[in-house]
Amino acid sequence: MSRGAAGPEIERLIQLLARLPGLGPRSARRAALHLVKKREQLLGPLSDAMHAAHERIVTCDDCGNIDTANPCGICRDARRDPSIIVVVADVADLWALERSAAIDARYHVLGGVLSALDGIRPENLSIDRLIERVSQGDVKELILALNATVDGQTTAHYLTDRLAHLPVKVTRLAHGVPVGGELDYLDDGTLAAAIRQRTGF
Amino acid sequence: MSRGAAGPEIERLIQLLARLPGLGPRSARRAALHLVKKREQLLGPLSDAMHAAHERIVTCDDCGNIDTANPCGICRDARRDPSIIVVVADVADLWALERSAAIDARYHVLGGVLSALDGIRPENLSIDRLIERVSQGDVKELILALNATVDGQTTAHYLTDRLAHLPVKVTRLAHGVPVGGELDYLDDGTLAAAIRQRTGF
Repeated sequence: MSRGAAGPEIERLIQLLARLPGLGPRSARRAALHLVKKREQLLGPLSDAMHAAHERIVTCDDCGNIDTANPCGICRDARRDPSIIVVVADVADLWALERSAAIDARYHVLGGVLSALDGIRPENLSIDRLIERVSQGDVKELILALNATVDGQTTAHYLTDRLAHLPVKVTRLAHGVPVGGELDYLDDGTLAAAIRQRTGF
Repeated sequence: MSRGAAGPEIERLIQLLARLPGLGPRSARRAALHLVKKREQLLGPLSDAMHAAHERIVTCDDCGNIDTANPCGICRDARRDPSIIVVVADVADLWALERSAAIDARYHVLGGVLSALDGIRPENLSIDRLIERVSQGDVKELILALNATVDGQTTAHYLTDRLAHLPVKVTRLAHGVPVGGELDYLDDGTLAAAIRQRTGF
């Protein structure tokens, strides 16, 4: 707003909300107005929740997960198989795999993927720590759960090379038709992979 | 997330963020992750900004605007013309008009429009307070800046009836071609109005 229609507090709130992914300047303004209209039901609780998160959340030194404890809940969970580490680029990928409940293993968050374009080099990722964890024994399999993009696959190949001298099995996610996916809309590469890696009933 | 991948603090943050307009469960998760990754640059400042807004923001008893003072900055601004009140449905509309800097008048926020479908009746809107403000003298013109929708226009007609006995001129926004708008994409009603209300050069 020009001419101070709502004061600096709301202006500041709008500016900060606009920095969230998925919110532009216009939707940040709508969100801010919604918040100040629902002061008691939403603004107060959200303010408290952010304060609590800011106070308590730390990054796990072992795996790079985000949690309120260090080591994180997953690293401390004795029921999980310590012999398998699922390597992901980002905490969002870890969350997605946890939601799917596909595997009861440990994780390792690289903090990104190699990218010549964005200037992300091996030393910018948590690769040394991964090799350290693998060298410490116990780990029998590394599942590289990286995006099926050029950068993701480059990173997977780089990791495979770096891990070649270690006695650990390196695997990657299967390619194929997404569940619920329609063949007609799939790209040729996915279809070819799905045929090649076909399974019996 | 299932299985507590990131603890209750983040879960709570995601749930509250998902209640903002423009954010669904998926984008709320992305926003929460972005916040906890940028703890110092974003989460902390946003938490503080929300706290400040929650502490200080009030609704103006005169016009219904949202501000840190009551009466609000606009109602207290002596440079504004007190003889014109722009009637809007929502604070968002007030903000939009202030951004356009189209007029230096006072405002009155109704808090919605009449709607049979949503069960919004005259007593749910700030209409009595508007008539009170008009009755107190000074006001010479009311500009009904309501949406050009059925509910907006119903509300405008209702207000015109209620104000008929008062010595105040009631006007409404012009219909016409939006600046930068292409005739080809406009509806017939707008085109007809633009022709009817054509102006000289």
